[in-house]
Amino acid sequence: MSASASTPALIALDWGTTSLRAYLLGDDGVALDTRASSAGIMNLPAGGFDQAFEETCGDWLGMFDSQAPRTARLPVIAAGMVGSAQGWVEAPYVDTPAGAAALVAGIVKVKTARGGIVHVVPGVLEKGVLPNVMRGEETQIFGALASDAALNEADGALIGLPGTHAKWAFVGNDRIERFYTFMTGETFGALRDHTILGRTMHPSATHDEQAFVRGVDTARDAGHPGLLATIFSTRTLGLTGQLSAEQQADYLSGLLIGHELRGLNEVLARDQSSLAGRTLRLIGNDALCDRYRAALARFGCTDAATVAHATERGLYRIAALAGLVSAPVRAA
Amino acid sequence: MSASASTPALIALDWGTTSLRAYLLGDDGVALDTRASSAGIMNLPAGGFDQAFEETCGDWLGMFDSQAPRTARLPVIAAGMVGSAQGWVEAPYVDTPAGAAALVAGIVKVKTARGGIVHVVPGVLEKGVLPNVMRGEETQIFGALASDAALNEADGALIGLPGTHAKWAFVGNDRIERFYTFMTGETFGALRDHTILGRTMHPSATHDEQAFVRGVDTARDAGHPGLLATIFSTRTLGLTGQLSAEQQADYLSGLLIGHELRGLNEVLARDQSSLAGRTLRLIGNDALCDRYRAALARFGCTDAATVAHATERGLYRIAALAGLVSAPVRAA
Repeated sequence: MSASASTPALIALDWGTTSLRAYLLGDDGVALDTRASSAGIMNLPAGGFDQAFEETCGDWLGMFDSQAPRTARLPVIAAGMVGSAQGWVEAPYVDTPAGAAALVAGIVKVKTARGGIVHVVPGVLEKGVLPNVMRGEETQIFGALASDAALNEADGALIGLPGTHAKWAFVGNDRIERFYTFMTGETFGALRDHTILGRTMHPSATHDEQAFVRGVDTARDAGHPGLLATIFSTRTLGLTGQLSAEQQADYLSGLLIGHELRGLNEVLARDQSSLAGRTLRLIGNDALCDRYRAALARFGCTDAATVAHATERGLYRIAALAGLVSAPVRAA
Repeated sequence: MSASASTPALIALDWGTTSLRAYLLGDDGVALDTRASSAGIMNLPAGGFDQAFEETCGDWLGMFDSQAPRTARLPVIAAGMVGSAQGWVEAPYVDTPAGAAALVAGIVKVKTARGGIVHVVPGVLEKGVLPNVMRGEETQIFGALASDAALNEADGALIGLPGTHAKWAFVGNDRIERFYTFMTGETFGALRDHTILGRTMHPSATHDEQAFVRGVDTARDAGHPGLLATIFSTRTLGLTGQLSAEQQADYLSGLLIGHELRGLNEVLARDQSSLAGRTLRLIGNDALCDRYRAALARFGCTDAATVAHATERGLYRIAALAGLVSAPVRAA
């Protein structure tokens, strides 16, 4: 079925801290149109959530207002920080292990200025000594589970979501069992922009794979005194002429991602497992997933494909389970 | 001998990136007067190094200009970033293992606007896969070695210098054998001021020892996925009501210092050693050394006294070896 043959069925929002991504999904769960806005929940226009929603999706709604009774409006579903305490409405966390049905049960509705309803998907909380939270990634994970057979093995699978706050989730039996958050992206930005390490860096238009891999390997190899010490080598390798100013940012990026994967290996070691030889899946933008694949390969993991369209598939799947749309047609 | 009975013998400067500390030392190596200025090498007045030096020490020099020929001016010695490539004059690094004689041999002189000479002590470089550099700490270490018998054991000793870039140096036979740099202080500032972790923190006038120790213990205990993951618990413990907004900064501080000490233990483990039961010494400001002592105690290290006056003792000792002043009287 081609995308153009489907009928608009759902407005699906991935609404985070710094951005809003909107999908107009057909009745096959495939996007007919997409919009991207910088109106994240910490960056809203004066009119707040309503204005951001109208500006991004208003014409999708208006298009149908003129042709159908108001009750025929498209259903709207949203995931991400829009459901946090600072969001449009708070959708309290669902505890791990969390299945899609629990997310559906936790949906909180908010009424728009136009009188429509936005269905806000809750995040997931893992309690414990080191609690973890996610908002938005749970929806992407359920989108990935719906479309990738490799993730549905009974003995559990591992999904990585690189980014500002990278998540690594263990899933099994169609549930999120447990997960970890690594502040890799945000720490990289803070170190580059607000410490001495940035002072000797020159921006580079191209990605330096060699410098990146060197950073990964340095973090991976045993015997070093940890992240707080290895990051200083970004500077000292520059001072000693072993790393150019243009290479230093990619080296630091490799170091941090390497430390993240080393930490993940520590977790896997508890179950006598490791990244080496493992099959896993990534969700995220292509350039970042490419970096992670290169880093994972240094840890012996070479089966780490990106799951495409996880966000919109997840939103459609949860909307279908909630009865907002008909069950999605599996896209192979 | 009381301080007031000694004769001014040396102007000694500890000149770093963000501050300049000046000591007027008597012929017994004890400070007769001290000055502190914010004129670090990255924060100089319009007149540069000369103006900063004049403003801080000019009256010490002028005092003697009126009573003695110009040749009777006090000798001046300086250590720290003042000898870096961005400093007053570059004093190239001395390689490890580095003794005091090598530092003396590496002194580079710079002429002041008044026609005086400032003797700039070089820093120390440890070459290798992860190179390390220090500027200023080497002088403090030699000051500590001169005054603390516990540091002169033949089998080597460990000295910690907490701060923006914390150093841990292994010394033996009156030489700096090797050392590590942990960007603990600067990383703390970057995370607190420039990531999401700071958003839920409220400043507190008092140090929360319990929250600090909790952070140390979390970093110390095995099984966690590393620093990039544990720091996120600063936020999630807050979200789940287990850490107040006022406690979060001390918890994060404890986490980072704990990760530093854990990394140090990794290094010690190579020699089948650890922090537990070890004797070591600290150099630094009292409040920060107190924090490190509390953290070290969680690692089983309870003999970690602060060495007082290490900076001025080191500068005097190197000046004496360089023939700028007579040999210092040991202050017990």
